[in-house]
Amino acid sequence: MGISELVTPPPGPQRGAAMREVTVIKDAALLVRDGRIAWVGPARESPAVPTEHDLGGVAVVPGLIDPHTHAVWAGDRLGDFEARVAGVPYETILAAGGGIRSSITATAAATVEELVALARPRLMALRQSGATTAEVKSGYGMDFSAELRMLRAIRALQREFSLVSTLLIHVPPTEEREAYVRGVCQELIPLAAAEQLASAVDVFCEAEAFSVEEARRIFLAAQANSLKIKLHADQFHALGGTELACQLGALSVDHLEASGPAQIAALAASGTVATILPGVTLHLGLPAAPGRRLIDAGAAVALGTDLNPGSSPLFSAAMAVALAVRLNGLTPAEALTAATVNAAAALGLSDRGALSVGQRADFLSLRGPDWRELPYTLGTNPVREVFVEGVNQ
Amino acid sequence: MGISELVTPPPGPQRGAAMREVTVIKDAALLVRDGRIAWVGPARESPAVPTEHDLGGVAVVPGLIDPHTHAVWAGDRLGDFEARVAGVPYETILAAGGGIRSSITATAAATVEELVALARPRLMALRQSGATTAEVKSGYGMDFSAELRMLRAIRALQREFSLVSTLLIHVPPTEEREAYVRGVCQELIPLAAAEQLASAVDVFCEAEAFSVEEARRIFLAAQANSLKIKLHADQFHALGGTELACQLGALSVDHLEASGPAQIAALAASGTVATILPGVTLHLGLPAAPGRRLIDAGAAVALGTDLNPGSSPLFSAAMAVALAVRLNGLTPAEALTAATVNAAAALGLSDRGALSVGQRADFLSLRGPDWRELPYTLGTNPVREVFVEGVNQ
Ligand SMILES: [Zn+2]
Ligand SMILES: [Zn+2]
Repeated sequence: MGISELVTPPPGPQRGAAMREVTVIKDAALLVRDGRIAWVGPARESPAVPTEHDLGGVAVVPGLIDPHTHAVWAGDRLGDFEARVAGVPYETILAAGGGIRSSITATAAATVEELVALARPRLMALRQSGATTAEVKSGYGMDFSAELRMLRAIRALQREFSLVSTLLIHVPPTEEREAYVRGVCQELIPLAAAEQLASAVDVFCEAEAFSVEEARRIFLAAQANSLKIKLHADQFHALGGTELACQLGALSVDHLEASGPAQIAALAASGTVATILPGVTLHLGLPAAPGRRLIDAGAAVALGTDLNPGSSPLFSAAMAVALAVRLNGLTPAEALTAATVNAAAALGLSDRGALSVGQRADFLSLRGPDWRELPYTLGTNPVREVFVEGVNQ
Repeated sequence: MGISELVTPPPGPQRGAAMREVTVIKDAALLVRDGRIAWVGPARESPAVPTEHDLGGVAVVPGLIDPHTHAVWAGDRLGDFEARVAGVPYETILAAGGGIRSSITATAAATVEELVALARPRLMALRQSGATTAEVKSGYGMDFSAELRMLRAIRALQREFSLVSTLLIHVPPTEEREAYVRGVCQELIPLAAAEQLASAVDVFCEAEAFSVEEARRIFLAAQANSLKIKLHADQFHALGGTELACQLGALSVDHLEASGPAQIAALAASGTVATILPGVTLHLGLPAAPGRRLIDAGAAVALGTDLNPGSSPLFSAAMAVALAVRLNGLTPAEALTAATVNAAAALGLSDRGALSVGQRADFLSLRGPDWRELPYTLGTNPVREVFVEGVNQ
């Protein structure tokens, strides 16, 4: 019995054609010591150990890493959803008090404890779907105290989940925009850095959100405070944010649905990870990010759920893998690499994502003996057991 | 607590704009007697009863009905999947021994007991996803004894699940085709009818499968043996099968991705249900069936998973609802009607699908108080409890 096959990319990030080079070990064993992988290889060669856990003859893959979520929010967007699919324009939904500003209003009104209680079942669903590490962003707070409450909620949830916290500068205020950006740079970022509430700063760069120039100012403030940088870019328009982020050494640029040859080339030539979010494609029916072209150009592509109430109510990291194969043209092996070592790199992490000696013992046992059931299965969870630092969750 | 809202279409089938007319009862109660619904209405008006079950303040909808599955198969198509998404043409996969003929070979080699054991977890996943009744087809058997073994496996599974069995004439033999069709009409259909192994006969009408004329002969044989008829049609080419099926009073025509105005008009003018299968759209990346146009033309649209290993590994009736809203342009209410009373009609059933007095007490409690989480949620199961004839599964 044991492990029918153990499938893993090498420690990452992996770029271009190397994303397809996963290792498959048949009849494998994995030795865990102090939450780390101490040995991995064919079962017949495994060293003697005091205690053994039989995984039941199924496939094992690294724990998935979800590098892009907005899992902390209050309120719901069910009315918006119903209106949108019935053909009501987003402007009308916004005018009726819906859209992202309804999430902001509800989130700003919630206490840290309420935000924690609302996010917990979402993060449990993500973990059951295979996400052994997830990133969570702020960004529905708007005013700084609400943003800090979101970050404190994420910190509280770190006691239960393996989470990376990101300060997201998401929605410009309708007035006093210049003062807001100045405040972000001079107050909010230094506060978040001083309290170690976030490891990176993310900006939503879009025609309706922040400009490339605003993103640059915010990034420089982040870097001055020793925080890493990330970017939401090219979701609807390629404005130049991707090129800026690559120049400034961002961990990742995320979305990329509207990326063209120049943006793809910039990502391929940089150390910045290209994170694609197929849940948005399915939920909104918009064009998919050019995952295939990014890999063919030599970029390191990562994969996330973008879990959020408005544009991606996708509560499964495994389903993000399944969708990337259908919607973004990734092969199963590329999607596994995107959801593990490359997702780790998108968070600035190198200690997880691969099943090799010294890495965190974050791994999944699947329901069957063939690992390809992970990208193949739709509508039911292909993950049986989730191990974080060697402990069954 | 009790039921936050109970949402149901009226008993069906419902056509066109009537598909949107679902009833919403806030703070509802449901009275079950002998597996049927004895009373339904606002909790404050409910009659006194000996035993009460508190559903915990969540939403309740009718049990979903999956009117189109191929849940009995042996072997797997994981290698085919990997090859196809890497760009290998289907012809090459077929030539290498893959494709549907590999499912036929593996299924024909399996015993009834093996088929039952393989199908059981699939049907459990479907039921957990909200399917309180599912249809299962034969069609991977090819030779008649293998077809009958598939039907016997479905019959055995009826002891555990509420299933409707369909004899599917699926793949023409490569030689002696005329003799095969004659045998279907003169031997297989009479045998299946005599043993009550199927309630309907389905034919795959397509350029690569059976012609309209062959479908007509098979349908007439089915009707001569008092079996109902159904059709797989317009998946790739609109050959006239849809029009034939409507003329002959088929229960449903399924697929319809290639249906044009003539086929839509034929369905709208007939009593035949139009069954759409969005899992195929997502899995294969092919055009979606014109669900929106069918409803706008006045047809009765139903919704199924088409669960099968090659073109729709979709193990969730709830996700079929979620996909129909994204991919086929249905509203949440239309998708609920499609997956309940209209799906029942596609199986010739009128005793289930609506939460009204006299109907089977097949219903679902959801995870939250708003029923729209059923069509909205992606990647996790929005269904908490599944009741079949009043019994929690
Ligand atoms: Zn985002
Ligand atoms: Zn089918």
